[in-house]
Amino acid sequence: MTISPAADAGPLASDLTEGELIARISGRLPAAPAWLAVGIGDDAAVVEPERNRLEVLSVDALVDGVHFDRAFTPPAAIGHRALAVNLSDLAAMGATPRLALVSMALPGSLPIGDFDGIIDGLIALATRSRLTIVGGNLTRIGGPLVIDITVIGTVKRRQVLTRTGARAGDDLYVSGTVGSATAGLGVLRAWTKRSTPEDTEGMSASAPAELDDCVQRYLYPEPRLRLGALLGHNRAATACMDLSDGLAEGVRQLAAASGVGASVDADAIPLDRAGRRWFERRGGDAVHEAIIGGDDYELLFTVSPRLRGRLKAVGRHGAAQLTRIGSCTADRALLLRQDGKDQPLPRGFTHFR
Amino acid sequence: MTISPAADAGPLASDLTEGELIARISGRLPAAPAWLAVGIGDDAAVVEPERNRLEVLSVDALVDGVHFDRAFTPPAAIGHRALAVNLSDLAAMGATPRLALVSMALPGSLPIGDFDGIIDGLIALATRSRLTIVGGNLTRIGGPLVIDITVIGTVKRRQVLTRTGARAGDDLYVSGTVGSATAGLGVLRAWTKRSTPEDTEGMSASAPAELDDCVQRYLYPEPRLRLGALLGHNRAATACMDLSDGLAEGVRQLAAASGVGASVDADAIPLDRAGRRWFERRGGDAVHEAIIGGDDYELLFTVSPRLRGRLKAVGRHGAAQLTRIGSCTADRALLLRQDGKDQPLPRGFTHFR
Repeated sequence: MTISPAADAGPLASDLTEGELIARISGRLPAAPAWLAVGIGDDAAVVEPERNRLEVLSVDALVDGVHFDRAFTPPAAIGHRALAVNLSDLAAMGATPRLALVSMALPGSLPIGDFDGIIDGLIALATRSRLTIVGGNLTRIGGPLVIDITVIGTVKRRQVLTRTGARAGDDLYVSGTVGSATAGLGVLRAWTKRSTPEDTEGMSASAPAELDDCVQRYLYPEPRLRLGALLGHNRAATACMDLSDGLAEGVRQLAAASGVGASVDADAIPLDRAGRRWFERRGGDAVHEAIIGGDDYELLFTVSPRLRGRLKAVGRHGAAQLTRIGSCTADRALLLRQDGKDQPLPRGFTHFR
Repeated sequence: MTISPAADAGPLASDLTEGELIARISGRLPAAPAWLAVGIGDDAAVVEPERNRLEVLSVDALVDGVHFDRAFTPPAAIGHRALAVNLSDLAAMGATPRLALVSMALPGSLPIGDFDGIIDGLIALATRSRLTIVGGNLTRIGGPLVIDITVIGTVKRRQVLTRTGARAGDDLYVSGTVGSATAGLGVLRAWTKRSTPEDTEGMSASAPAELDDCVQRYLYPEPRLRLGALLGHNRAATACMDLSDGLAEGVRQLAAASGVGASVDADAIPLDRAGRRWFERRGGDAVHEAIIGGDDYELLFTVSPRLRGRLKAVGRHGAAQLTRIGSCTADRALLLRQDGKDQPLPRGFTHFR
């Protein structure tokens, strides 16, 4: 992996008018679908709702310095992540993406090339996810870059996944691997800042290639839309949520919403090999670091043991590894079973406080 | 009018967790309607669409230091304005408000009392407008307060108002008065900063009571929802938009979208008396100042002369003064007729550049 030095800033987004910036977005958008009656350029967008579907709505903001750092996040990754975190919420509800509104607050220092790159990253993921950008808002800000995206998806009434349906005895599952994005973020920080010797131990001009996957997972998280849709369609899951704030926090929130406790088996938690080594090299407990770290955007869900058969069908078609990591309990305690001992599940990551 | 000094800061919003802050919002919300299947607390909100209606979607952000100034904008007014600017977009499309998602980026210095005040102002307007807050997002920011609201309204297909339908010969109308909010903002700035002698000329311990209405118009703009709905329902208007960026900019944008020119009669532009005096006392041309100033949130619309009868019915029921200020022309020029002479319409206000 190589990270190129900051490009020459060139012209700034603030040199352009709002109309000129909007035109740079509109010019990058694919043709609008027939259900979009009024698109960008009027006071508001007008759309025809989809028949016989419920609508699923989510908003998430990415703030420079809180959710990413422009110093080591390429513009395309900023745009990708800003949309991916929203699509991940739709995936967690079993919904199919339909449309988005994109609101950006631009600092005066933002190069126009970076603005274009953000839009390119965002539109690439939108197009791949069959999501139409129907409108948005641009403003300047005397502060950090903010990207605020509202997404709307659709879902059949009986296929909605919520956090509230888990029952004692249900198995806890997670998709993909846990902690990879946290390791990737650590690599990016260490490589960019080279702040302390231990951060960069064993790293020369570029980060080890074995960590490329982790870095990619942080920069370009892939929302589990297909898995979420299949879990809803097969009615295999009793509850589901996405792991924006890490596994530990996810288990805590899902259990609270469903009124159950949970017991998580540390040995079962799927870490990828390079991520595990990254945590261990830094002297930490790999499992602990992985489950308190955020940004995974995997799905955490519960399955009634009676319905394991349905889950197998999902596993075959869902294009994601599914791992049973524990189970829900009638006792409201949240436990991590590690080395044969139960300990309290650690507090998770929070972007807020 | 009196403006109280900044209150003792007290506890800060950043002392609370995201969950505690969300609870302060949820606890202030009225009961949810039956069409809200999943509300605040899950990965996303789930709603039942309204039958036989198109959906109208808009997003607008308010940034401290750009769109308002916490130094002289009370928290309730910040919350009110953040929603009002969005509702004004719905009004301009002829839509009826339905739901909103509220995304806020909170600086560490925000007192919790101010957070509560913002939410109170927002919910008061939402409740009065029969709009349900179905979800949102909270994050911290190392910078200014940002409030980003997405609203969705509904409208019958044949009642959508756009900017594109004006034809040469159509009359140009504006609701209410123009420039009052700009005067109100000027009063607030002058009273708060008392920066230069001419700013505060004639002002003692409090601003003149005659300017209270202007200050109110800036702090608590009233979106023209009833008027917009009636214009759509009666099919009286050929084009419509709201005046977030002032009358001059509005005429420019509506004319461009419809492919016409416009001639505006300066003497016809409705200024309120106190606002006019405020501009004149500062040595400006009142009409010029009023039409380049933003924040009016009145409706600008065009009416075919054949349909003036329909407009009369709207005027009787719309609870807003409607004033004919000029007409659309086949020639694409944008003119302001003042003292018997045509001059180019001045460039309007823009929040962006």
